[in-house]
Amino acid sequence: MLSRGDLDRLVVVLVRARNPSNIGAVARAMHDFGFRYLRVVNEFAMPFEAAKSAVDAGAVLAAAEQFGSVAKAVADCTLVVGTTAVGERVLQHPLRALPEAGAEVLAHLADANARVAVLFGSEKTGLSNEELSHCEWLLTIPMEEHEGVRHPSMNLGQAVAVCLYELVRGEAKVAVRVGVPAAATGAEVERVTLLLMEVLEKAEYSQHHPANCEVEDIRRLVVRMGLTGTDVMVWMGMLRQILWNANKGASRE
Amino acid sequence: MLSRGDLDRLVVVLVRARNPSNIGAVARAMHDFGFRYLRVVNEFAMPFEAAKSAVDAGAVLAAAEQFGSVAKAVADCTLVVGTTAVGERVLQHPLRALPEAGAEVLAHLADANARVAVLFGSEKTGLSNEELSHCEWLLTIPMEEHEGVRHPSMNLGQAVAVCLYELVRGEAKVAVRVGVPAAATGAEVERVTLLLMEVLEKAEYSQHHPANCEVEDIRRLVVRMGLTGTDVMVWMGMLRQILWNANKGASRE
Repeated sequence: MLSRGDLDRLVVVLVRARNPSNIGAVARAMHDFGFRYLRVVNEFAMPFEAAKSAVDAGAVLAAAEQFGSVAKAVADCTLVVGTTAVGERVLQHPLRALPEAGAEVLAHLADANARVAVLFGSEKTGLSNEELSHCEWLLTIPMEEHEGVRHPSMNLGQAVAVCLYELVRGEAKVAVRVGVPAAATGAEVERVTLLLMEVLEKAEYSQHHPANCEVEDIRRLVVRMGLTGTDVMVWMGMLRQILWNANKGASRE
Repeated sequence: MLSRGDLDRLVVVLVRARNPSNIGAVARAMHDFGFRYLRVVNEFAMPFEAAKSAVDAGAVLAAAEQFGSVAKAVADCTLVVGTTAVGERVLQHPLRALPEAGAEVLAHLADANARVAVLFGSEKTGLSNEELSHCEWLLTIPMEEHEGVRHPSMNLGQAVAVCLYELVRGEAKVAVRVGVPAAATGAEVERVTLLLMEVLEKAEYSQHHPANCEVEDIRRLVVRMGLTGTDVMVWMGMLRQILWNANKGASRE
């Protein structure tokens, strides 16, 4: 498993991104998934400066660097991966779907001397052939092909979010398991079952539907409820109240 | 493996989305990943109408439906899943990280009578407790926790894109393998190796560095190049030209 520091050796490189709000969306996705190093290749400083001065520009954007060429932006990288929507371009590179590409990037990052650049092209045209020539291989996000319509490339911020998610998804289970309510124990399920039977008896349901009231039937019903420990307390309280009320009515008759 | 038609039984439900461009981004991500049914729950029609009338509103947005409440939007669904950024909210639902959640949604969709709703809350506040109460369980996109700063929820369009990607990523390999250039055969590698040796001989490199010029050394070098069949033709052409030029020079001496 890679550490946080290992992921710091991955840099996202935006090449000729035109829209400042897209650059901002990329920085936000990087922050969300814990990536820190953004590089921007632009002939003109405008979109980058506009994105940096946005109100909610975060730490990723503040630390982002601008380069004059792809060659300079990837000079310290040991693996350069391009992204492509494929389309009609004739590919001159090996192409990997994102799940496989992510695994290969992570394997590369396991070497402490590695630094990986993932290049994203401009919103309109993607990466040019010159820009692609810096790449060892290409990754593509698997998308649906729509008949007749040539597929547009994905929104830049969404594409970066999906790629970075693929890199961290393997760690997901550990991070999230906290906070799931504990499932009810067999003993708790049994207490609910028996109390429910008592209520049904009292309400004369058992009398009218004896075939539904075998203890096995009721237990299966309760098991299927998928109760948590907290649910059990709530249900026990409700059933006791129903029973109390039924007994009260009975004693008044 | 699920078919395209199975995925049509998944509906994305946006609850109180405020920003028309976010609704548009969600529709675009759905189109990209091949999902067709978008439902919008909004007290006011404005954001939905604005999104629908946007210039590049596609088929997903055109077919989207508006509902007055979550209850109505999910009335025909057999599984309702909420999305949450967790944060400080006290969870009253089982919580699953996206990779696990995706597998469970797909398993549910395998039943031809199932219809699954995945709910996304408003950009600012997420889903309310009332809205969450319609959900059987919650999914969360694993994100980096940043010390001291409570984590903001993810951009709506990005969150939907990441969730839908998780649902189709299992099919990725098949869809993309086409177009990868075929690797060179052993015979091709051998032809390049022998021609390269001849060139090195001619250039008197072998004479000055005999230790580097064993056929095994050269072959390992060529194998490491990871040549494709096309690469082989290019290299053979270059090497032949170099050899021709060297021979020409030699004959002139």
